[in-house]
Amino acid sequence: MRERVSELPVTLDDVRAAARRIAPYVHRTPVVTSRSLDRETGARVFLKCENQQRVGAFKMRGATNAIAMLTPEERARGVVTHSSGNHAQALSLAARLLGASATVVMPSNAPAVKRAATEGYGARIVTCAPTQAAREAGTEAVVRETGAVLIHPYDDPNVVAGQGTAALELLEDVPDLDLVLAPVGGGGLLSGTAVAATSVEGTRVVGCEPFGADDAWRSLTTGERVTEQSPDTICDGLRTVLGSLPFEMLSALGVDIVRVEDDEVRRALLTVLERTKQVIEPSAAVGVAALLAGRIRAQGLRVGVILSGGNVDLRAWVDAL
Amino acid sequence: MRERVSELPVTLDDVRAAARRIAPYVHRTPVVTSRSLDRETGARVFLKCENQQRVGAFKMRGATNAIAMLTPEERARGVVTHSSGNHAQALSLAARLLGASATVVMPSNAPAVKRAATEGYGARIVTCAPTQAAREAGTEAVVRETGAVLIHPYDDPNVVAGQGTAALELLEDVPDLDLVLAPVGGGGLLSGTAVAATSVEGTRVVGCEPFGADDAWRSLTTGERVTEQSPDTICDGLRTVLGSLPFEMLSALGVDIVRVEDDEVRRALLTVLERTKQVIEPSAAVGVAALLAGRIRAQGLRVGVILSGGNVDLRAWVDAL
Repeated sequence: MRERVSELPVTLDDVRAAARRIAPYVHRTPVVTSRSLDRETGARVFLKCENQQRVGAFKMRGATNAIAMLTPEERARGVVTHSSGNHAQALSLAARLLGASATVVMPSNAPAVKRAATEGYGARIVTCAPTQAAREAGTEAVVRETGAVLIHPYDDPNVVAGQGTAALELLEDVPDLDLVLAPVGGGGLLSGTAVAATSVEGTRVVGCEPFGADDAWRSLTTGERVTEQSPDTICDGLRTVLGSLPFEMLSALGVDIVRVEDDEVRRALLTVLERTKQVIEPSAAVGVAALLAGRIRAQGLRVGVILSGGNVDLRAWVDAL
Repeated sequence: MRERVSELPVTLDDVRAAARRIAPYVHRTPVVTSRSLDRETGARVFLKCENQQRVGAFKMRGATNAIAMLTPEERARGVVTHSSGNHAQALSLAARLLGASATVVMPSNAPAVKRAATEGYGARIVTCAPTQAAREAGTEAVVRETGAVLIHPYDDPNVVAGQGTAALELLEDVPDLDLVLAPVGGGGLLSGTAVAATSVEGTRVVGCEPFGADDAWRSLTTGERVTEQSPDTICDGLRTVLGSLPFEMLSALGVDIVRVEDDEVRRALLTVLERTKQVIEPSAAVGVAALLAGRIRAQGLRVGVILSGGNVDLRAWVDAL
């Protein structure tokens, strides 16, 4: 097992090196527990609060590691990505902290609040038509014109190594976990988590995703990567299809996927909000949803769950008070 | 100053003793900070997260201390209170942990969710008409029939001493605070906070309340306690009038009050939700509101803020996702 892992594009040593590299720039996030969550799940649950990470999501880890690993020449040319989500904000802040310029290609229909947040961290925004093709073309144009280095949100070994540092910290704080659950969208977090968990004998990693965007489950079940889907889920961070690098890694590491219904996500989200007082986004609730809905056997187990982020829009709720 | 404090019904020694007494039953809550909150306020802000306390509010501290200080004979008779809020849940859980029975007199219009939560912790509920007179009569009837001991939510020195332990912990974790802000409703938390802060030279305590329930401000400004008001505020935990014991203590300790608008509370609530990912209730946001709205001079100061609780109903927001 260890030998096979060492042949992968990202190894445990890479994750450990990433942890040292990014430590000055990211938060070591807390692990919280809840008696009532334990009672409701029958497990002992440890929640790794990446909602409290800088920019409000684990994405800060991978973006920081990727930029920190650029050569001085590359860093001077700046970085670029296409995203309207947490990766855009993470790349923007990480670039600023590491003295690089960042450009983010965003579709014209991206929410104004996300655009403003990304600009707030210092990135230049380039607007494109709201299609995948336009996003890629816009990104290529930026690369061509500025020489900026593309930092992909998950198909990048340095990004995956960075994302794995969340699980590494979790396992340092709670060494004897039987199971670690992480959401899977593009698969960067889940791949990094799977690599990190190989540092502990007997710790199993399972990915969680909504039925309405179950490409990872289909890809890993059939052995053939699904490259397109029409997602239908409230988990906006998990609508992306599984990347080719994560697909390769999750296949090699034998990581299982469980699927949850959106209503199970809603119930889990409310439980986390009420019981732990942590603001999390729907995508972050899939692990707890899998436990509460009994979609994974966890009775009596010690289970780590990565709460991947907390970027939700509560303005309407507050205004209605 | 110290001599005058020692003559008060609750002293620093009482708060310290309460901290030791309740330690096995309550959480030591975390203190969180936020770069963006510091930037927006111009202060260095330390948030004491009583939203993460057991039952989701600081009330657990006072209720636990009050029950723990009963004689064995009193404890055997059980405890009673009239409340539909956090004190009811706190008394219910504290009684269970300390082996006492609890009865809570609740108005018939109390939200079902609060009733269920209180019952969930083990208390017996007695329903009464939704008037202050009916609540008091109902409570007296319970006392008469069962011999139960009334634990008042704030007009009780042992409750006040318990509430002061939150500030005591905050000052242990962040010793050199210039200013500590706490909400004021009945005044138990603010009185206890003021007593605890006398343990540090040069730490000033200011109470915060909404303009729509500003009886504490009026009481302390005029020197005459306001005993009735028609509250109009989203801060449901602060609609109570200032108790006579807190009035006496806050007057003696020279504690100032600042008032905030509900819209300032909404802005602060959203800022805390977004920037710290802590679920808090509107009443808990008044301190941050005072800072963000510039209602208190805090430029360059180190400011502790007690986030008093996190019991809000987010079900409708989750269902609408």
